[in-house]
Amino acid sequence: MRKRHKLARGVAVVGAGMSKFGIYKDRNSKDFFVEAFQDMRTSVDKGFDPKDIEALYIGNFTNDFFVHQAHWGPILSDLIGHTPKPATRTEGACASSALSFREGVFAIASGFYDIVLVGGVEDMSKRTTEEVTEGLAMASISYEREAGFTFPGVFGALATAYFHQYGANREHLMNVTIKSHNNAPLNPRAQYNMTIREIMNAKIEKCKAKGESVSPWTTEKEFLSDPVANPVVAWPMHLFDCCPISDGASCMLLVAEDIARNFTDKPLYVAGIGQGSGRGLHAADSLTYFEATRYAAKEAYEMSGLKPEDIQFAEVHDCFSIAEIIHIEDIGFFKPGEGYKAVAEGHTRLDGSKPINTSGGLKCKGHPVGATGVGQLYEIWKQLRGEAGARQIPNKNLRVGATQNLGGTGGTCTMTILERR
Amino acid sequence: MRKRHKLARGVAVVGAGMSKFGIYKDRNSKDFFVEAFQDMRTSVDKGFDPKDIEALYIGNFTNDFFVHQAHWGPILSDLIGHTPKPATRTEGACASSALSFREGVFAIASGFYDIVLVGGVEDMSKRTTEEVTEGLAMASISYEREAGFTFPGVFGALATAYFHQYGANREHLMNVTIKSHNNAPLNPRAQYNMTIREIMNAKIEKCKAKGESVSPWTTEKEFLSDPVANPVVAWPMHLFDCCPISDGASCMLLVAEDIARNFTDKPLYVAGIGQGSGRGLHAADSLTYFEATRYAAKEAYEMSGLKPEDIQFAEVHDCFSIAEIIHIEDIGFFKPGEGYKAVAEGHTRLDGSKPINTSGGLKCKGHPVGATGVGQLYEIWKQLRGEAGARQIPNKNLRVGATQNLGGTGGTCTMTILERR
Repeated sequence: MRKRHKLARGVAVVGAGMSKFGIYKDRNSKDFFVEAFQDMRTSVDKGFDPKDIEALYIGNFTNDFFVHQAHWGPILSDLIGHTPKPATRTEGACASSALSFREGVFAIASGFYDIVLVGGVEDMSKRTTEEVTEGLAMASISYEREAGFTFPGVFGALATAYFHQYGANREHLMNVTIKSHNNAPLNPRAQYNMTIREIMNAKIEKCKAKGESVSPWTTEKEFLSDPVANPVVAWPMHLFDCCPISDGASCMLLVAEDIARNFTDKPLYVAGIGQGSGRGLHAADSLTYFEATRYAAKEAYEMSGLKPEDIQFAEVHDCFSIAEIIHIEDIGFFKPGEGYKAVAEGHTRLDGSKPINTSGGLKCKGHPVGATGVGQLYEIWKQLRGEAGARQIPNKNLRVGATQNLGGTGGTCTMTILERR
Repeated sequence: MRKRHKLARGVAVVGAGMSKFGIYKDRNSKDFFVEAFQDMRTSVDKGFDPKDIEALYIGNFTNDFFVHQAHWGPILSDLIGHTPKPATRTEGACASSALSFREGVFAIASGFYDIVLVGGVEDMSKRTTEEVTEGLAMASISYEREAGFTFPGVFGALATAYFHQYGANREHLMNVTIKSHNNAPLNPRAQYNMTIREIMNAKIEKCKAKGESVSPWTTEKEFLSDPVANPVVAWPMHLFDCCPISDGASCMLLVAEDIARNFTDKPLYVAGIGQGSGRGLHAADSLTYFEATRYAAKEAYEMSGLKPEDIQFAEVHDCFSIAEIIHIEDIGFFKPGEGYKAVAEGHTRLDGSKPINTSGGLKCKGHPVGATGVGQLYEIWKQLRGEAGARQIPNKNLRVGATQNLGGTGGTCTMTILERR
């Protein structure tokens, strides 16, 4: 047998775009996708003709449920003049567009196509919060939902287990939240654009203006500890530990490595792609890691020949604050039980030794689930090309970045590594 | 640029299985998939260890809607001990598992994996007929549903246009139905196992037993012309023009060509894969062909170097009788407007010059939508290996067969060509 986890042909990223994530009651998946596509078009330095795109892969979790329409491949194809060429939807819950990226890579590496568009979309805001919670629960592994778990409940249980095993506490989760909110105002496409301190001060001003007594918050952690300002959702997950409901789309243009410089002098190369599956919480050895992420990381590192210390920064799937801590351990950046300490010590800050979620993460950038995987890769694209503006990582030799995307309760996890050469 | 639509590495099919399609109120997708998987295991001549499977691709249209559970990749992976290895769901409406097959081919051809399981599943019987009709409508291109079209309505419109343009009539559709029902009793995994004549005679016996006056049917066409025995659904689609609601699963084991003979001395080779997208009826030049199928056929023929006359038999997507006639024209077997004549002349019968839907087709084998694409390929596997039993095509030199799979109203269409060497 051949050596596994190697591609017969290299693949490059030559364009990337995303819509501004948020809540858009009067817009739909078509609007979001076109916005992301137009953004991507302008990102291709030497330009290109959309008619040259040979295939489309689109990640979507469940517009079936959210807007009662499936079969988005051809619908989105039509908008960009792509028909009659092929379009395939991939679904792996919140990792749906990381899967579309991977299938795009395979389609090119196989030799069948040279130019492939990949992306994702989700339209979540047309349902009530209760309905969205119900829809998202379809991403869990059946037993969990039958047992009464919703997603905040699942991650609350994980946080509790992590606290118990490693001695962390709520303050460590707050470090994640504060960092995400510090990065988000620097990202013009993020859903939220205020730091925790700004939110706190705004609340204080609002109280004063109404003549109400002002809460005695002087630090961000005091604010986040206040059960009125930051109410519990599923202990220890409070409101500010949870990502929002979002609408949005993302996309990337992939091409065969040998033609990448026809599109740009600054292509990124797909160094590693990994994917794993999980059995669900009922079958997990431990609630403090995701086996599927560890497997995905193993594949991605094996393909790339890189080690965790070679990855300079990453976007990881912080659907809940505890998830970010677990993921940076699972992809090998920090040892199990050491992630929360690394965050506390500032290593994961924008100016830290291992910046994490410089985009603001799912927490602040937003999490239109099907769009998130490629949305994470969009941030890697911006950073590696030195185009991240105010949130540019202050490292002149930025060369390798990665994403980790999680679907459901770890049912589908991916790791993707991009590099500049 | 490289020559397009060629694979860097050949791919072979070394095992195939399917559950018996039908209505199973007390069984679910997990049961169907395990049944198909066990059937596939016994089909691998030299045996294999399921632990060697490196990735799973599973087609599913909308269990989201039908049974309120998404994210089937990891759920099915768990049943066969496949976790933590990757599992990806593909969705292209009724072509969902033709897409899983194609992604499996790309994953191997890319060099990343050597052994991949592909398949599909759908569980449709837990909803009322009205609800299933509603769910299936999510596969159409949005405007169609908004205009009030259900699927029988869409294909009724297509048939009307075809009649008008080419001079065909209902009797020509009956030829398709009668042929499908002649083949189905020879297929032990088909949902229905009676010929039209047997159904007619059974009705006559039933009337006699009840002492009712017997209808004056002496031929199958007289029976199918009786609006009580064969009521109209959406003219000219009558009950016996429409495929049923079904539950079921299908799967196939794909491996790199260079290791195929470790599994069997009779592998089949993937000669051609093609896929196309359609814009929907509102944008079609004509209602008498599917542009997406023609594009898919172009890709598949281009990759294979084969011509329509080289394909000895095929399974095509006869969700409605008219669809079979249109598809055999779109894949080039017969000229536009000639398909219905070829059927009338017997060319598409089991013993004809171009046997079509020897399995009984979607009409009689059943149509659990996500399972259909690979279910069609299962028939090609059986026929090319000479294992189709009573329905074996009487051609001693059977070497090349194809499938055509249609999703929605032509939103996603595929053509796949398998060959024996």
